[in-house]
Amino acid sequence: MTAVTPSAGVRASAEDAILVLDRLRTRGPLVHCMTNIVVAGFTANVLLAVGASPAMVESSEESAEFAQVADAVLVNLGTVSPDKVTAMRAAVAAAGHAGTPWVLDPVAVGALGFRTRFAAELVTHGPAVVRGNASEILSLAGAAGAAGRGVDSTTSSVDAVDGAAELARRVGTTVAVSGAVDYLCDGDHVLEVHTGHPMMTRVTGVGCALGALVAACCAVESSPLVAAGAATTILTVAAEVAAAASPGPGSFAVSLLDALYALDARALRAHVG
Amino acid sequence: MTAVTPSAGVRASAEDAILVLDRLRTRGPLVHCMTNIVVAGFTANVLLAVGASPAMVESSEESAEFAQVADAVLVNLGTVSPDKVTAMRAAVAAAGHAGTPWVLDPVAVGALGFRTRFAAELVTHGPAVVRGNASEILSLAGAAGAAGRGVDSTTSSVDAVDGAAELARRVGTTVAVSGAVDYLCDGDHVLEVHTGHPMMTRVTGVGCALGALVAACCAVESSPLVAAGAATTILTVAAEVAAAASPGPGSFAVSLLDALYALDARALRAHVG
Amino acid sequence: MTAVTPSAGVRASAEDAILVLDRLRTRGPLVHCMTNIVVAGFTANVLLAVGASPAMVESSEESAEFAQVADAVLVNLGTVSPDKVTAMRAAVAAAGHAGTPWVLDPVAVGALGFRTRFAAELVTHGPAVVRGNASEILSLAGAAGAAGRGVDSTTSSVDAVDGAAELARRVGTTVAVSGAVDYLCDGDHVLEVHTGHPMMTRVTGVGCALGALVAACCAVESSPLVAAGAATTILTVAAEVAAAASPGPGSFAVSLLDALYALDARALRAHVG
Repeated sequence: MTAVTPSAGVRASAEDAILVLDRLRTRGPLVHCMTNIVVAGFTANVLLAVGASPAMVESSEESAEFAQVADAVLVNLGTVSPDKVTAMRAAVAAAGHAGTPWVLDPVAVGALGFRTRFAAELVTHGPAVVRGNASEILSLAGAAGAAGRGVDSTTSSVDAVDGAAELARRVGTTVAVSGAVDYLCDGDHVLEVHTGHPMMTRVTGVGCALGALVAACCAVESSPLVAAGAATTILTVAAEVAAAASPGPGSFAVSLLDALYALDARALRAHVG
Repeated sequence: MTAVTPSAGVRASAEDAILVLDRLRTRGPLVHCMTNIVVAGFTANVLLAVGASPAMVESSEESAEFAQVADAVLVNLGTVSPDKVTAMRAAVAAAGHAGTPWVLDPVAVGALGFRTRFAAELVTHGPAVVRGNASEILSLAGAAGAAGRGVDSTTSSVDAVDGAAELARRVGTTVAVSGAVDYLCDGDHVLEVHTGHPMMTRVTGVGCALGALVAACCAVESSPLVAAGAATTILTVAAEVAAAASPGPGSFAVSLLDALYALDARALRAHVG
Repeated sequence: MTAVTPSAGVRASAEDAILVLDRLRTRGPLVHCMTNIVVAGFTANVLLAVGASPAMVESSEESAEFAQVADAVLVNLGTVSPDKVTAMRAAVAAAGHAGTPWVLDPVAVGALGFRTRFAAELVTHGPAVVRGNASEILSLAGAAGAAGRGVDSTTSSVDAVDGAAELARRVGTTVAVSGAVDYLCDGDHVLEVHTGHPMMTRVTGVGCALGALVAACCAVESSPLVAAGAATTILTVAAEVAAAASPGPGSFAVSLLDALYALDARALRAHVG
C-alpha cells in the first residue's frame, strides 16, 4: 500500500461478521434489488440463504414506491438500459427521502460510456456503499485509462485503494474494492478482508451477490464500513468452505449457498483467524 | 377453518397426481411462460424435469401468436413493466379466443399499486387458476390491509381460505393459496395439500415454478381444481424427497429438479399418506 | 445422408477440440452475449467454466461500443423484443466493421413471425456461424412447414443437413445443426459430432450455451467450421462425463459445469474415440 492511504489497513473482524449475520437471520431485512438479468436468480438465492428477503422490482412505475418500504436498496448496472435508468433514478431519490441505505454496484463502468456517465451521476446521490472491482472503482474515481475488460478488472485491488479512499472522501461514501484481497474505505479508515477463493471468479454473479449482501447488511448495521466488512467476510468465508468441498464451479455455486445457510461463529472465527 | 368455507377441505389425492404426472410425461405440453427475470431459468428447468416443454415468449410482437399455439399460458407479474402489461393483455386475449387455459400468478400484488391494479383487471378475464401466497390472494380478493412484505406473505394460508373462496366464486376461477398448507378453492370445494418443506421458501422461484406447473397440469387435466391439486402435490412431494437429501438451499434446489424427474407413484403415495 | 450433401460427413476431431480448448483457457476471450432472460446466467457460467470471459450487454446505447472491443459476439433471439432488435442490429454492424466474429442463434425461428423475419435479415449480415436445431435451421433456409414446436425441433438433425448446406452456401456462413448427432456445414464440408446425451434436452439453455461457446471458439480459431466442431465436441463430451455422474437434470447441470472446468485431452480422446 502507498503512503497516501488514509490509515494502515486493519483486518475486518470475525466478531462483526458474527453479529451482523445474526441480525440478518433475526430481522430478515427486505432488500429491493435492481439488478441485471444474468445474476438476478443467484442474487436472490444468496440473500435467502442468509435469511434476508429479496425482491426484484425494476420498473419506473414501481421502483420509488418499493424503495420507500424496503430496508435497503441495491442498484446494479449490469444490464442497464434507458428504462432502468429512469427506474433507478426514482428508486435512489425515494431511498434518499426515506433514509433507506442503498448500494451502488457499477458493473463494467469505465468500459462503456453510457453506464460510466450514469454511475458518475448516481454516486453523487448518497450511496451508503459503492462496491466494485478495481477497474470499476478507479474509473468511478476519475482515473484515466482505468477501464476494465468487459466485467473483469485489469488491475489488482491494492492498486485501487488510493482511488477508493479519494472517492470515498469526495462523495462521502464507503467504497468496497473486491479482489484477491478486499479493501473497504470510508475515507478515514481502510478495512482488509483476506478470506476468499479464486473459484469466486469462475461463477457469474458472485461479485454482484456481494453487492446485494452489502445492502442487506446496511439494513441491520448503521456503519456502512462495518456492514461492508461483515458482508465481505460472510461471503468470502462461505466461499472458502464451499471451495473445499467442490471439484468445479458448478458444485461450488451450489455449495456456496449451502455454506452461507450453515455459516456459524465457529467457522467465521476459524477462517478469519 | 371458519364456517363460511364452502365445504370441509379434503386432501388432494396421490392418485390424481399420479395420473396427471403421467400425462405430463406422455404428452409434453407446450407451456407459454410470461414470467420474471429472477426465476425464468428455474421455472423452465422445473417444467423440463416433469416432461413439459416451456417457452418464454414475452414481447407484445409475439405473445398473442404464441398463446394461440401453446397448450397453456402462465402470466406471472414478478417483474412486470408497461411493455409486459401490453404483451400479457394480448396473450390473455389470445388464450381466451383459443380456449387455452392460463394461470395468473399475482406476485407481490397488494404491496405495489401498479401491479395490484393490473392484477385486478386480469383476474376478470378468465384465468383457469390464480396461484399466490395468502397476502397476494387476500389483496386480490379485496381485503383491506392484506399487503404482504415484498414478495412474502404476512398471513398464514389458512386465513386466506375464505377470501380465496369468495374470489373464486366472484370471478369463476380456481384459487390456489400457497403456504405451509396449500388450499385450493373453486368456490364450491376446498382441497388441501399438507406435503411440503420449509426449505421451499429458501430458494427463489419455487412458488413461481408452482404457478408454471399448475399451467402445465391445466393443459392435460380439464378440471382446474384437480390440476392445481396435482401440481401442488407433485412439487411438494418432490420437495420432501429433496429436503431429506440436502444440507442447505443450494443442494435443495438441485435435488428438487432430480426428485421431480424421478418422481413415481410409489413416492407420491408414500408421502401423501 | 442424401446425395446432395456437399461431401460425406467426417467426424470432428478430438485434437481440434483439445487445441481450441487450450486456447480458450490461455487467452480468455471476451464474449459479448446478447441473449435471453432464461439462460443468461447458465450461459455465463458455461463460458467461465472453459476460461472465457462473458459479458452480457444488451441495450442499444451500449451494444455497438461493446461489440467493437469484444473478441466475439453472440446474438440469441430467445426473448427478442423491438428494443433488443435495435441493439442487435447495432452490435452486428459494429462487429462487421471491426471484423469481430459473431454467431446467430435463431431460437424458435419458424414458430413466430416477428423473430423469423428478423433472423432472415440478420443472416445476410455475415455471421461466422448460425447455430440452431433442425426446425430453426430449416425455417431459416426457407423450407416450408419447418416450424418447430416452441423452442423444440420437430425434425431430426439429419433431415436438416441439406437445408443447412444450402443456407451456408447462399449466405456464405457455417451452419451448426444441433441434435442427437450434430452436423456442421460450411457449404463444402460437413462435420459430424456423435458425442452427447439426451439429458442435454432436460436442462434449459444447453443449446443456447453451445451457441455462446461457438462464439468463444470463433475468437480463438479462424475457421468457423473447426471452431463450431470444437465447441460442440467440448460441450457434448462434458455432457457425457456429467451424465454418468448425475441421477437427474438438476445434478446434471451442475456436473456439466464441473466437467467443462476439468475437461482434458484424455477425456476428449476417450469419448470421441
